[in-house]
Amino acid sequence: LENTYIGLDIGGTKILGALFNEEGQILKKEKTSTRASKGAERIIQKISKVVDALLDSENQEETQVLNAIGLGVPGIIKEGVIQFSPNLPWSNFPLKEYLEKTYNVPVFMGNDANVSLYGEWTYGAAKWSKDVVGFFVGTGIGGALILDGKLYSGNIGAGGEIGHMIIDPLGPYCGCGARGCLEAFASKTAILKEVKNQIFRGRETYLTKFLEEDEYILKSSHLKEALEKKDQLTEEIVFSASQNLGIASASMINIFNPELIVFGGGLIEALGENMLPVIEEFAAKYSIKQNFDSCKFQLSSLADKACLYGALGMIKNRISL
Amino acid sequence: LENTYIGLDIGGTKILGALFNEEGQILKKEKTSTRASKGAERIIQKISKVVDALLDSENQEETQVLNAIGLGVPGIIKEGVIQFSPNLPWSNFPLKEYLEKTYNVPVFMGNDANVSLYGEWTYGAAKWSKDVVGFFVGTGIGGALILDGKLYSGNIGAGGEIGHMIIDPLGPYCGCGARGCLEAFASKTAILKEVKNQIFRGRETYLTKFLEEDEYILKSSHLKEALEKKDQLTEEIVFSASQNLGIASASMINIFNPELIVFGGGLIEALGENMLPVIEEFAAKYSIKQNFDSCKFQLSSLADKACLYGALGMIKNRISL
Repeated sequence: LENTYIGLDIGGTKILGALFNEEGQILKKEKTSTRASKGAERIIQKISKVVDALLDSENQEETQVLNAIGLGVPGIIKEGVIQFSPNLPWSNFPLKEYLEKTYNVPVFMGNDANVSLYGEWTYGAAKWSKDVVGFFVGTGIGGALILDGKLYSGNIGAGGEIGHMIIDPLGPYCGCGARGCLEAFASKTAILKEVKNQIFRGRETYLTKFLEEDEYILKSSHLKEALEKKDQLTEEIVFSASQNLGIASASMINIFNPELIVFGGGLIEALGENMLPVIEEFAAKYSIKQNFDSCKFQLSSLADKACLYGALGMIKNRISL
Repeated sequence: LENTYIGLDIGGTKILGALFNEEGQILKKEKTSTRASKGAERIIQKISKVVDALLDSENQEETQVLNAIGLGVPGIIKEGVIQFSPNLPWSNFPLKEYLEKTYNVPVFMGNDANVSLYGEWTYGAAKWSKDVVGFFVGTGIGGALILDGKLYSGNIGAGGEIGHMIIDPLGPYCGCGARGCLEAFASKTAILKEVKNQIFRGRETYLTKFLEEDEYILKSSHLKEALEKKDQLTEEIVFSASQNLGIASASMINIFNPELIVFGGGLIEALGENMLPVIEEFAAKYSIKQNFDSCKFQLSSLADKACLYGALGMIKNRISL
């Protein structure tokens, strides 16, 4: 018999799943949309659909047996219970227990950003680094910290929410209830809002054609396409998001003096090469020189598989994050 | 023979010194102004003056012998060398070596905010806490972090500069070279600048009478007196500083999920009771509820002796911070 492992990445927009073998190779991948607006019940069904598809695969060998599930979930998690999730409609939901009962294997669960940074740290761009800050920019902005070679999670496991650092106290309202959070400036949600505002104000943009679809979700690939077309509004908005990420990086550089900042998440995957130089420029401008000089900036090397590999890392090391 | 220890607190405005006995009692205190504007040479003379006064005391017993010196200095320190100090005119100055040669005892040195929080943690308000953030508000704003029960200092020892987190990217310029840092909003220096601006704009304030002195340094006691007189400008400015400290606290609460935030430094010593309720109100408004609810807020219990006791703590534990 050969052990297999399932890694899951539960995002605000989509759910990704991978079946790994003992050596950490991906045998099969699955993907579905989250449709968060349809409620918690529906999300659970979607998660089950992904797991079932990974297990029911025609490619699945008779000799393979599921050993464990690892997953990253946006929000604050304590002992397998999702306590609060700014972008998903569940609170106090015992997801770990539910999955353990349903699939009869141990489940290792963590905040998606923590799990993604753990993935980069065990298999990717942050390998061997002692002090690392991770920004994961997608529907929201997740964050994670590795300090003194250990994932830092704080007093009740709710640390690392660097997407909710305040970068302008009079800034836009945020999904978390506060205002002026980094997430309210530089997430895909924030970008979409600004695109809509600007279209409403009469600006012309290449993005309009995508906005004509029903129940529109801004895809990072749309922004990438618009940038390639030299769409001016998109250039401005992506520049502004990068600027804000750079300013937030400066604060992290002053506060933590990390040796590395890793940028990941859907937006960065698509636009990272455009965004990173601007992020670095503004980080330099707003941070103490000595701290800046001792910090490297890197794009995630695992891209959309960071959380999946982090899930595998949790399983292998028998920890939840 | 009985061992004695000297603790020093080198501030932007004043230098404090204490002679401790083996039991940690203060035998003698000294104090002088820093006069930072007169250059590095002059500050060294001032430090020596304080140490000499502590040692040459008529009260000094014949049987007492100096065992070690501990000191806190504003700025980034590495291996006893002051690399950068936003409010003092020295860089790359080997202060530890100088003091060791001069007094022929081991010297333990650290960033003043780190040393102050270490004082609170070993002898004061933060005793036994696992995850603590310390704000020290005076001429500048120092910060320090105890994470997982250990003082966190980052990759090159320059972590904890939470006074230089950006709270408004278009805010006023800061001594560190960036703009919109917390320090540029809520330090005594920032408050003095705002008082002068407002007087220039024609506002009447009780503080005017203090400003008529030569080479004016705003004393926290002046602000306290003005608050007692219900001076409206002072009320507004202190409220605004508290608001900004609250917003910065919110970011720290979201990023670290600490169990305790300690507020110290000259401004807090004088006005802490007025400021703390406003700090807490704005921290609550701008942070994730679960994180806020798990965090306590406390005023420094060692007041202006936090750094001196931290120096003693360093000596006793044979560490530099």
